[in-house]
Amino acid sequence: MAKIAIMGFGTVGSGVLEVIRRNAQSISRRVGEPVEVKYILDVRDFSGHPDADLFVNNLDVILQDPEIKVVVETIGGTKFAYPYVKAVLESGRSVCTSNKEMVATYGAELLALAKSHGAAFLFEASVGGGTPIITPMHQCLVANNISEVEGIVNGTTNFMLTKMKTESMGFEEALKIAQDLGYAETKDPGDDVDGRDACRKIAILASLAYGQHVYPANIPTRGIKDITVLDIKAAEKLDCAIKLIAWARRDEAGNIAAGVEPMLVSSENQLAGVDDVFNAVLMKGDMLGDVVFYGKGAGKLPTASAVVADVIDALKNGAKVHDSLFWQPSIPYEGMLEDTSASVTYLRTKGLAPEVMNTLFGEGEVVLRQEDQVCYLAQSMTLKELEDVKPKVSALGGEIQLFMRRLEQ
Amino acid sequence: MAKIAIMGFGTVGSGVLEVIRRNAQSISRRVGEPVEVKYILDVRDFSGHPDADLFVNNLDVILQDPEIKVVVETIGGTKFAYPYVKAVLESGRSVCTSNKEMVATYGAELLALAKSHGAAFLFEASVGGGTPIITPMHQCLVANNISEVEGIVNGTTNFMLTKMKTESMGFEEALKIAQDLGYAETKDPGDDVDGRDACRKIAILASLAYGQHVYPANIPTRGIKDITVLDIKAAEKLDCAIKLIAWARRDEAGNIAAGVEPMLVSSENQLAGVDDVFNAVLMKGDMLGDVVFYGKGAGKLPTASAVVADVIDALKNGAKVHDSLFWQPSIPYEGMLEDTSASVTYLRTKGLAPEVMNTLFGEGEVVLRQEDQVCYLAQSMTLKELEDVKPKVSALGGEIQLFMRRLEQ
Repeated sequence: MAKIAIMGFGTVGSGVLEVIRRNAQSISRRVGEPVEVKYILDVRDFSGHPDADLFVNNLDVILQDPEIKVVVETIGGTKFAYPYVKAVLESGRSVCTSNKEMVATYGAELLALAKSHGAAFLFEASVGGGTPIITPMHQCLVANNISEVEGIVNGTTNFMLTKMKTESMGFEEALKIAQDLGYAETKDPGDDVDGRDACRKIAILASLAYGQHVYPANIPTRGIKDITVLDIKAAEKLDCAIKLIAWARRDEAGNIAAGVEPMLVSSENQLAGVDDVFNAVLMKGDMLGDVVFYGKGAGKLPTASAVVADVIDALKNGAKVHDSLFWQPSIPYEGMLEDTSASVTYLRTKGLAPEVMNTLFGEGEVVLRQEDQVCYLAQSMTLKELEDVKPKVSALGGEIQLFMRRLEQ
Repeated sequence: MAKIAIMGFGTVGSGVLEVIRRNAQSISRRVGEPVEVKYILDVRDFSGHPDADLFVNNLDVILQDPEIKVVVETIGGTKFAYPYVKAVLESGRSVCTSNKEMVATYGAELLALAKSHGAAFLFEASVGGGTPIITPMHQCLVANNISEVEGIVNGTTNFMLTKMKTESMGFEEALKIAQDLGYAETKDPGDDVDGRDACRKIAILASLAYGQHVYPANIPTRGIKDITVLDIKAAEKLDCAIKLIAWARRDEAGNIAAGVEPMLVSSENQLAGVDDVFNAVLMKGDMLGDVVFYGKGAGKLPTASAVVADVIDALKNGAKVHDSLFWQPSIPYEGMLEDTSASVTYLRTKGLAPEVMNTLFGEGEVVLRQEDQVCYLAQSMTLKELEDVKPKVSALGGEIQLFMRRLEQ
């Protein structure tokens, strides 16, 4: 009997218990012995729960039980999760987590800690929920250098953008629906709609792809709040979908750029058809070309099943087989990763005459007009050029309300 | 220095050498030491080749060299590949192969042989070329029971069907283009167009998903030869694409059904948008829901990079970590896996009046007519019902020229 503990009995944590029980037979066959949840660490009161006797509220109970080999962390955030996971790894036990914030912030440190204590630190569920992305990336693609990762990694905003497109509605209305359905948080939906969740995920994927820690704080991040019905219509006219794209790129000199931003995605692009709460990640390998991993991102059981796959892996293999699931620490710096590339760029301006667009933003086309708003598609523009033009726009009494670059294949 | 041998220096074999050299640095970092190809086994004359000194034409040279730990098999077919791979595994060396015919036919035996000799038998490249499918399937999905696998696993026919659709051309014309581009074999394109290649691949995926050997000979297989421009037009009218779908399904009682057949795929379905030489495989896990793996299937370097990923895995981990990449032998039986499910079914008939369709095939609609051909969409029909109706069709002086079932989500 292999015994494990779960820290944090929220949605994912309770899902882990459920998956382990429902698929007990096949899991036992894979591990070579039955797997039992011996403790659940949660400070809340579960005295009425059918598994009340499993609950503990002190980490030491787990740390002092030599039977426990693997600990699942599904607390979320970093305040408790980070010190708890550190203590578990330092005790030589493996940790399996779905906590993207912790991995994105402390990944390099925790990976090194696991390595030095002969334990595994696994986090497949932190990106893409149940969809396997991290494992195929680090394992199957070992013979490739990955130049680029781009994806739709936040199901909530993708659901909202799909609604906005198919029902021609604005941001606020779509948010309300997402909240009613439980996809977005009611109190503070900012993690999703401001792009922070996507930022953490691309930080993890970029760290893994490039072998050095890429911090969320250095990734320029914009959410979808500013997108209006007019933008949706303009995108449609351009035969594009608007998607919140998280991307990372390394050029031949080794410079890394990354970002999270709403982008125009041509309907030809595989990512344009990824709708509703689905996630998809596209990777470019130098030998392999493009590969896409696609699946329903979030959800209790999908995410839990990815955590359980990691648990099985940790029970069977311990720290042995995860050498390539690793990246080096790096020093966080002030400022942002810089993107110097030029893109086709969509601009929605207010208070500017259509005639001046060409002079301000270079060659392009007026896509739509509505009152004093103009939607313009500039053929080629860098972020630096965009910054430089802002004073000129203000001088003419206008403003740039939104810009979106086009995702290039 | 880790030393390996390559058996068979065709497209994939030479690609393996190229990938190992081009990405030598990152491969060395992953393995922990440099990887060198010491021998290439090929009976053809490569005396003018820059690496002429690596070539040998006798397997014993490899078997008798204790430095060789891993052998790549890229000969293809089973005549030589099968006895050679057996000999290599029996010597305790691991084998990495892209040979779907061999895995589909002898997989269970070779997996057991590898296990009993402490070696690994890896074949990621046998399905999907470079796209990781087998590894995420057996590893990340260990916490799921897979009920269904369906996919587009033959790039050549998918390229042809894409051409036929976008340029309204018939089978012969599309085949000619595929041959000119080197996608289809000139001498005998039957492996691709008759579905045998897809059949082997779904046999491998079904064996892995269900843990018991599923033989290609038991999988009902139809190719795309009978598809005409009229069918393409009818599909378009139904807002569907025609795709060669390889599928396998296990019901709750444990009965396995599988098939390879051209199907109508609604444009809503993720697989409908998989065009050209791309492959995509969709899996349904009981905890996870749908997951899709998508990428460019064939090609020298993509396929070779998947073989090299297996080589790295075998060098690092030997037989240790592949317990779940396994299935049990089963006895091949006479006849075919039976599919008893009812589907929406498209029929192209000749010599039947539209008025009799309803009586013959049950409720449905006439989609298109051309001379004495009628394209009819029956709402629900089993394969058994289709067989039963054939004598009635003949009695009326008609024939069923083609039927295609609709892929259900």
